[in-house]
Amino acid sequence: MTSAPDNAPATPAAERRFKHYWEDFQVGSVREFGQMPVSREAVLDFARQFDPQPFHLDDTAAEASLFGQLSASGWHTCAMTMRMMCDDYLLDAASLGSPGIDQLRWLKPVCPGDILSVRLTVLEARPMNSRPGVGLVRSRWEVLNQHRAPVLTMEGWGMFRRRPDAAPGARIPG
Amino acid sequence: MTSAPDNAPATPAAERRFKHYWEDFQVGSVREFGQMPVSREAVLDFARQFDPQPFHLDDTAAEASLFGQLSASGWHTCAMTMRMMCDDYLLDAASLGSPGIDQLRWLKPVCPGDILSVRLTVLEARPMNSRPGVGLVRSRWEVLNQHRAPVLTMEGWGMFRRRPDAAPGARIPG
Repeated sequence: MTSAPDNAPATPAAERRFKHYWEDFQVGSVREFGQMPVSREAVLDFARQFDPQPFHLDDTAAEASLFGQLSASGWHTCAMTMRMMCDDYLLDAASLGSPGIDQLRWLKPVCPGDILSVRLTVLEARPMNSRPGVGLVRSRWEVLNQHRAPVLTMEGWGMFRRRPDAAPGARIPG
Repeated sequence: MTSAPDNAPATPAAERRFKHYWEDFQVGSVREFGQMPVSREAVLDFARQFDPQPFHLDDTAAEASLFGQLSASGWHTCAMTMRMMCDDYLLDAASLGSPGIDQLRWLKPVCPGDILSVRLTVLEARPMNSRPGVGLVRSRWEVLNQHRAPVLTMEGWGMFRRRPDAAPGARIPG
């Protein structure tokens, strides 16, 4: 999957057919995806823009820090996780955004040269009482490095359109 | 305050004197800071890199979405909040990073033209049992737009060095 090009013709969400609707998230399913290399340049770029603490910008300061070496901003790891989610399933899903995240934990430093992937577990799903045609999905994401060590975990709700009667759905493989 | 230049001479964190140490976070204090304009180009840049969902990239798709207009990725709002925290106090503080965040809520869309600020409340502070010389601070951040409407709230722990005996501290004004 590729990201949406800037000049993509706009199709109103209400008309577009998606591959995945709320019904396609199966509670208990576990899915692994993504292979995101973490480059030194990307770590520095993000830190310069958003989190210019010395341990995200400077090798010597990083060596003297609790992290021991140059590491990505925790918010950069969140952003890279979001990109893996988009590329794997969100851009094909009738996604309506998220109200929030709980228990976000940065467990280990993410360093240049790491390769990240995601393990997604669907924890809970229910129709949204206040919005007919919309359902909520609660998920847990674990982000792993190339040694299969968890570097980030979080849980959160996503809002998805329910499947229109006529639309075929595609269960997200778990 | 400006961000650290790429070629800043590295000073080991153990030797450097900071303005703010763990002792300078006063439980109950409330502080407002930041004035971050949200540009359309920044919203699009972040979305292209990390969150290319149509409602973050395309006006027409955004109008048909729950957001009603082009809005920033929620992770972009987190990143902008981090930048305001760095510029206001973190780059002057003996900050050692954060283990995580709880109850992150995206309450309202953040749109091009918005101007964000932060209200920080110090909720709790305690020495870190497992690391002598380090203390934990639990904070609540509310991000407001130019209409003083909260767009994001979150709580989290930060780790800070405790003040060395000889170092004068500067209480963070609340």
